[in-house]
Amino acid sequence: MTSAVRQRSLREANLALVLRHIGADGAITRADLAARTGLTRATVSGLVDELMAGGLVSAVPAGSLHLRRRGEPSRQHPGAGRPATGLALATTGPAGLGLEINVDYLAACALDLTGATRVLQVQRRDQRGRRPTRVLADLAGLAARVREAATRDGLRVAGIVVGVPGLVNGDGMVRVAPNLDWHNVDVGTTLRDAPGLHGEGSDALALTVENEANLAALAELHAHSDPSPSFVHISGEIGVGAGLVLQGRLLRGPRGYGGELGHVTISPDGPRCRCGARGCLEAYTNQEALLRAAGLLSTVEDVPPVERLRELAGAGDAAVLRALADAGTALGIAAADVVNLVDVDTVVLGGIFAPLTPWLAPAVSRELTARTVTAAWAPVTVRAAALGTTATVVGAAGSVVRAIRESPATWLSHLSADVDT
Amino acid sequence: MTSAVRQRSLREANLALVLRHIGADGAITRADLAARTGLTRATVSGLVDELMAGGLVSAVPAGSLHLRRRGEPSRQHPGAGRPATGLALATTGPAGLGLEINVDYLAACALDLTGATRVLQVQRRDQRGRRPTRVLADLAGLAARVREAATRDGLRVAGIVVGVPGLVNGDGMVRVAPNLDWHNVDVGTTLRDAPGLHGEGSDALALTVENEANLAALAELHAHSDPSPSFVHISGEIGVGAGLVLQGRLLRGPRGYGGELGHVTISPDGPRCRCGARGCLEAYTNQEALLRAAGLLSTVEDVPPVERLRELAGAGDAAVLRALADAGTALGIAAADVVNLVDVDTVVLGGIFAPLTPWLAPAVSRELTARTVTAAWAPVTVRAAALGTTATVVGAAGSVVRAIRESPATWLSHLSADVDT
Repeated sequence: MTSAVRQRSLREANLALVLRHIGADGAITRADLAARTGLTRATVSGLVDELMAGGLVSAVPAGSLHLRRRGEPSRQHPGAGRPATGLALATTGPAGLGLEINVDYLAACALDLTGATRVLQVQRRDQRGRRPTRVLADLAGLAARVREAATRDGLRVAGIVVGVPGLVNGDGMVRVAPNLDWHNVDVGTTLRDAPGLHGEGSDALALTVENEANLAALAELHAHSDPSPSFVHISGEIGVGAGLVLQGRLLRGPRGYGGELGHVTISPDGPRCRCGARGCLEAYTNQEALLRAAGLLSTVEDVPPVERLRELAGAGDAAVLRALADAGTALGIAAADVVNLVDVDTVVLGGIFAPLTPWLAPAVSRELTARTVTAAWAPVTVRAAALGTTATVVGAAGSVVRAIRESPATWLSHLSADVDT
Repeated sequence: MTSAVRQRSLREANLALVLRHIGADGAITRADLAARTGLTRATVSGLVDELMAGGLVSAVPAGSLHLRRRGEPSRQHPGAGRPATGLALATTGPAGLGLEINVDYLAACALDLTGATRVLQVQRRDQRGRRPTRVLADLAGLAARVREAATRDGLRVAGIVVGVPGLVNGDGMVRVAPNLDWHNVDVGTTLRDAPGLHGEGSDALALTVENEANLAALAELHAHSDPSPSFVHISGEIGVGAGLVLQGRLLRGPRGYGGELGHVTISPDGPRCRCGARGCLEAYTNQEALLRAAGLLSTVEDVPPVERLRELAGAGDAAVLRALADAGTALGIAAADVVNLVDVDTVVLGGIFAPLTPWLAPAVSRELTARTVTAAWAPVTVRAAALGTTATVVGAAGSVVRAIRESPATWLSHLSADVDT
């Protein structure tokens, strides 16, 4: 019994190890896999066969760059001349479905196992004042359409993660989403029960609900070359939030409510925040506050407000430059609190802050230098996020893909359970 | 080879498991140990014999309460009537030596394996303006005296941990200790080379250097009945710092510089802090700021300043009550930042704040309620620390003891290496 358990966990660990090497390389051969993992060629071949049967790995010409594009016909069937067969992550097979509820849009996307975005749909509409059940019905419809498109494209959705702009407990209950004015909305159960979302005749998919800022930080983590970076990813949207990543791991907090940077105090007598307190970072730096400070709140334009800010800043508009410098100061004070408390070495400006980084970063850096005790010998880097406003929905789908890549045995056992029943 | 490695790690895990059960119970029998661990009686007996030979466990009358006092003669030799033999953590044998450098005192203490303080010496003297080498020579002398006293008492110092009021890197280099005005002082190397500290003729002991606020938080963690609590322990001294404990683990931060709560911004235009910035928590709430706000800075008294504050607050002195309420407000704003960012459910007031908790806590709680987004359904507890100003030095010695209790095999192999050479 004990021995059987050990054999099983060894196999699980080796499946993950082999898949990790395949994911890290463009088109690795079985021989190279054996050399790099220290496993025998026979063991590697057995594991690879399992991964291929489960749709996680496909054959490509050895040494070919693994182009992250779909519909590469030569990949599945190496051409004449008998080149060695390489192995790559499958671009058909399991996929992650990410969903996002935000204040002024809904979004859904499907990522394949390589992390490539295969389908992405955004539905712009102000969700404020709408009943949560209506919003969730719209989201389920959008999700079903993205799922169908992914299925037509040879993908099979393996799990769903939903990002929401609020605090979520482990069961998928949104305790509060201040900018939507949602309180105790059971997003998890509602979407698990939504018709059409899970596909006809199949089992319900695993669905989890997560804070949007955490998912955006995960997207940034997945896009990072360093496997264990430490950073705070600050998401600017209608609200302001953050995800803390320490040595490659998201710090959710013991109860799952961490990263609420938007409600860190900048000045106790500052402007009133939607949360009821005074002087929160969000009250200084949310989209509405930025536009008001720049004198643009009442102007109605076709361009998205952030684009307008960017254009005017680029043109040297004094009011816009001053508004962005002030927002940068507030962001820098809050970022310094984070560095002092949890010792990250990088501040990533995401969401609407990402395109405004050239104008925000100088003030952020100035406050970090002035207010962190480690500044003299351990300076903090400030940079724009790799992904823009799609970070949350991409991070949501990506966390499904990550889970499969880190534990392929779980996906394979799920598949064989389907066959058994 | 692989099998040998597995056998060894199994033995290591079982030694720790058995020691954990012995530590949790007053005087457990071998039979109860077998029942609780699921190991055979023969295996348990072999492990217990090893632990006893290594001086980690001693025999006591079964069922007797394990009194945490030294010199209990009946413990080593159960009386007549042949009661079953119980097992308890040894009160002779390995001990932790904790040292502390603070702005106005040096301290050293020895803890036995049960966590009981066996020797504690505090040497009051203002260390500001003294050369670091002089301070460290004094500390080494104090440490040697405490070590000798512990040795006379049947203990054997197993390791040394030093607490300093500053930021320390992994090698024991103090990068900066603002209130001592120390910069790049190599405390680790200096103390490792100090004559007398390590005992005559024996190998140098492992010595690590750690931030004082982290050690005070560890002391609080070790004193806690819940094995995985989450809290921020705020240390008030000449400076102000904190240790963050999330689910039973100290969050040091990726570079080891986390928990610098003293430099979280309360108000950007607030009073100037020793670190150079404006409006840091420390500038509002360090001992000097408290005394100044209470109108007591210039009074010279025999009683320690915190005692004076406590007496006057108890007597209803209006200036003192106002000063403590204001300090509580600043502490509450900073604590709310911590709760928002890392989601702890408890704020522990330590150091000089501990005895002032009755007057600080109302304002701390008020700000937490106003400024944390989770307050409505997940209130935060505010309480005084279990240990007072000795928390750092006790936490330092305790972390040596903890390491032995969590990994007894390491201590046992260290012993047999001594015998071999």
